[in-house]
Amino acid sequence: MKITEGSFVLYFYNSEKKWLIKVDKDKKLHTHLGIIDIGSTIDLELGSFVITNKDKKIYLLPPSIYDFVMKSQRTTQIVYPKDYGYIAARSGLKNGFKVLEIGTGSAALATFMASIVMPEGHVYTFDINDEFMSIAKKNLEKSGMSEFVTLSHYDPEKISKFDDIDLVIIDLGDPWVYLDIVHPCMKSGSSVICICPTMNQLEKLATQFFISGFIDTEYIETFLRRIEAREGKTRPNMRMIGHTTYLGIARKVLRN
Amino acid sequence: MKITEGSFVLYFYNSEKKWLIKVDKDKKLHTHLGIIDIGSTIDLELGSFVITNKDKKIYLLPPSIYDFVMKSQRTTQIVYPKDYGYIAARSGLKNGFKVLEIGTGSAALATFMASIVMPEGHVYTFDINDEFMSIAKKNLEKSGMSEFVTLSHYDPEKISKFDDIDLVIIDLGDPWVYLDIVHPCMKSGSSVICICPTMNQLEKLATQFFISGFIDTEYIETFLRRIEAREGKTRPNMRMIGHTTYLGIARKVLRN
Amino acid sequence: MKITEGSFVLYFYNSEKKWLIKVDKDKKLHTHLGIIDIGSTIDLELGSFVITNKDKKIYLLPPSIYDFVMKSQRTTQIVYPKDYGYIAARSGLKNGFKVLEIGTGSAALATFMASIVMPEGHVYTFDINDEFMSIAKKNLEKSGMSEFVTLSHYDPEKISKFDDIDLVIIDLGDPWVYLDIVHPCMKSGSSVICICPTMNQLEKLATQFFISGFIDTEYIETFLRRIEAREGKTRPNMRMIGHTTYLGIARKVLRN
Amino acid sequence: MKITEGSFVLYFYNSEKKWLIKVDKDKKLHTHLGIIDIGSTIDLELGSFVITNKDKKIYLLPPSIYDFVMKSQRTTQIVYPKDYGYIAARSGLKNGFKVLEIGTGSAALATFMASIVMPEGHVYTFDINDEFMSIAKKNLEKSGMSEFVTLSHYDPEKISKFDDIDLVIIDLGDPWVYLDIVHPCMKSGSSVICICPTMNQLEKLATQFFISGFIDTEYIETFLRRIEAREGKTRPNMRMIGHTTYLGIARKVLRN
Repeated sequence: MKITEGSFVLYFYNSEKKWLIKVDKDKKLHTHLGIIDIGSTIDLELGSFVITNKDKKIYLLPPSIYDFVMKSQRTTQIVYPKDYGYIAARSGLKNGFKVLEIGTGSAALATFMASIVMPEGHVYTFDINDEFMSIAKKNLEKSGMSEFVTLSHYDPEKISKFDDIDLVIIDLGDPWVYLDIVHPCMKSGSSVICICPTMNQLEKLATQFFISGFIDTEYIETFLRRIEAREGKTRPNMRMIGHTTYLGIARKVLRN
Repeated sequence: MKITEGSFVLYFYNSEKKWLIKVDKDKKLHTHLGIIDIGSTIDLELGSFVITNKDKKIYLLPPSIYDFVMKSQRTTQIVYPKDYGYIAARSGLKNGFKVLEIGTGSAALATFMASIVMPEGHVYTFDINDEFMSIAKKNLEKSGMSEFVTLSHYDPEKISKFDDIDLVIIDLGDPWVYLDIVHPCMKSGSSVICICPTMNQLEKLATQFFISGFIDTEYIETFLRRIEAREGKTRPNMRMIGHTTYLGIARKVLRN
Repeated sequence: MKITEGSFVLYFYNSEKKWLIKVDKDKKLHTHLGIIDIGSTIDLELGSFVITNKDKKIYLLPPSIYDFVMKSQRTTQIVYPKDYGYIAARSGLKNGFKVLEIGTGSAALATFMASIVMPEGHVYTFDINDEFMSIAKKNLEKSGMSEFVTLSHYDPEKISKFDDIDLVIIDLGDPWVYLDIVHPCMKSGSSVICICPTMNQLEKLATQFFISGFIDTEYIETFLRRIEAREGKTRPNMRMIGHTTYLGIARKVLRN
Repeated sequence: MKITEGSFVLYFYNSEKKWLIKVDKDKKLHTHLGIIDIGSTIDLELGSFVITNKDKKIYLLPPSIYDFVMKSQRTTQIVYPKDYGYIAARSGLKNGFKVLEIGTGSAALATFMASIVMPEGHVYTFDINDEFMSIAKKNLEKSGMSEFVTLSHYDPEKISKFDDIDLVIIDLGDPWVYLDIVHPCMKSGSSVICICPTMNQLEKLATQFFISGFIDTEYIETFLRRIEAREGKTRPNMRMIGHTTYLGIARKVLRN
């Protein structure tokens, strides 16, 4: 596959130094590793490399959804791959799913979910912060996922129209408030997953899950640890993220 | 949605006690919680519950891919949700992906990946153990994913025919042996992910990644911790799985 | 060193199967590994082994404080080595320290602390549960630490007599209640450490530390992970304890 | 207790900003928080505070061994409190112990161990790097532990003179090399603990432990996670150290 004008390319030196750039024949990228002449990479093969004027090798890679998410413009804290991966695994997210998300943020999670539920599924995401929504819109366009995501200003009225949702995500500070609102929108047995950075949120959520008609509750956190694998001196990395968020998970049942 | 004869239902008491059963009008399930009359649940609403003769409430839930994987018949150790979730997140797995897997095992990972890449993508999975393959076949049929997975006896000849693979998974004890075999099959920039239970495997992999034309290497492990969320006494669970597997990850570039 | 009648010996098969026994010439220990004739080990060298009638090798080891703690009779959950080790490290526990402990439990922590502060220091420990106190007394005698520990029924009057305590441990469900009581007993700059199994306890403690004249607060948890080190297949153990307790730590300053 | 000229005081603003200073009537400390007039703190009470010219409150605390260790001048990586705490807990370290340490480094661990084994015990520590030894000497003097530690240039001859060691610490890159050397120096049943930053070291150690007459082997790592405890928003800290070192632990038995 050859690089074409207007496509996105990941210019990769190492995992710390990489740039996700829209190819433009007149663009030159000035970096600590020297100048990368973006225009000169048009028609080169993906997977090949160029050399900067400082003699550094820069690989030309096709960006994945992971790259778009990690390089997206951020509003508040994004949901990290270790967490959104577990969300997909735990909820059985798949092509055709209709997802309702309350709390779009920078659309990192919506981007990822859209890439999985497309082409037949869809993500309906709501936020209350206009500035976030504008950033989210740009991120979705960049990643090519706009078509599979509908971004709207939060409105309980609009949400009440849904009745066959396969997965609900709540990423706001008070997720328990929304359980009664989303319950009627959900298919029986489908999951709701709440992003809860604090222990206190989990606790309030636990009480409300029980009241609002949800079972099979699970409260978890995941850790990601990097390993430095090198012959004769393999060891975990000294740096590690100690916490991103807890997740509160449950499945809808009929109320009685 | 009503329960029909021949469909799968998750009979759920709690997260420890749940049964994934094919509905049959003559089946009765004898459990410590009493008898569940499977036949009597036909035509009931998913999300409702029945009462056993020991007065226990059993919810009727539609199984997700997660349930099929967790309840699949096992050969050796399966790849766990925390790990296969990260595999999906890190590789950008999505509808349309062509996946090559070496080491099917009980097809837990193949089942999950198929549910995401379908309907346009496909999982080609290879194993050398006939007994495992027979179990894998049954698990794939049960989960409804057979159509999107081709299961074959391992044969380098067959593998050499591929040239546009989007993701390679290697789940055998000596993953480094297969890197030269899969490299020509892969699209530039696509990921290979190796399941490595031991540190020694990561170490050998690290050396071979470099030789075989792979960059952007990452070696990680993930932890999953459960929290008991209860008003006034929220705390992590005392029991935890200390280790499942490491993952070794890299992207293909052109050799030169 | 030879084994003598009346001393304690750790009869060791492996880390799962070991017995801490007071040597008695007439005692025979019946185990799954065969009969250990305790009497016959008198006059044998510590560090040597005997063979059971089932041909198993049992090593004769001198018990350390660690062995006494791990083999002590338990009331509620004990404080684990990873936690009491950090308590010693963080508080600068050493010979000569005068320690005040509220909540003796089975005296696991008191035993460990006494072994460090002796011979010049002392542990004053208080509990309200007579049954626990009786078990604590036996455990202290067994480990030989009775001389360095004074065990009393909880009484704020008695506690108010102290004025030069070097370390306070609070191991009761509501540690914040005791902060005003212990503050006048403590040397300036000395530490109070609270054993808090739940997040809620840490939260209440945080507020009260501030009010009661404590600074340099730290809230932590520690994990211990075991590794299976074996040539060519080194990996972490699958089993792990996910949580023992949080610790809330602070230092006394003068109130103003 | 009042502050005297020549003593060490911990000038404490918060856990990130604190200074361990020898009191001198003419010293003034220039900091981002303003000037701390060290001389003016003579005769003040420990536990009280002074105000800088920038209106910041600086508490006057008596330093503990923990403070001396954390503020010691470093050579290579020090052994951290979570690790040396576990070393004390696991080995039953106590007053009277005779400790043999190979690999002094900056004497962080020797300082801590001396504070526990004193006044009757002693730490004999050996290193091969003269520059490290000179730094170690200064750190030991500063903490007041010199009297209980003998620091020597590594010499197998000298080590072979010991025959009643209660604990051996090996903190060099190739700990397995020293097992045969230290075995005859140790009391039966006493522990050897090796500081092993890499998995590879644990693996080699495991083989040699078995050959050299050690049993009850344990290979572990510990994690320390900080919690931000605040009313209504308690959560783990985002920053965390992902790895310090593994520990390899065993007990000596008689060879046969």
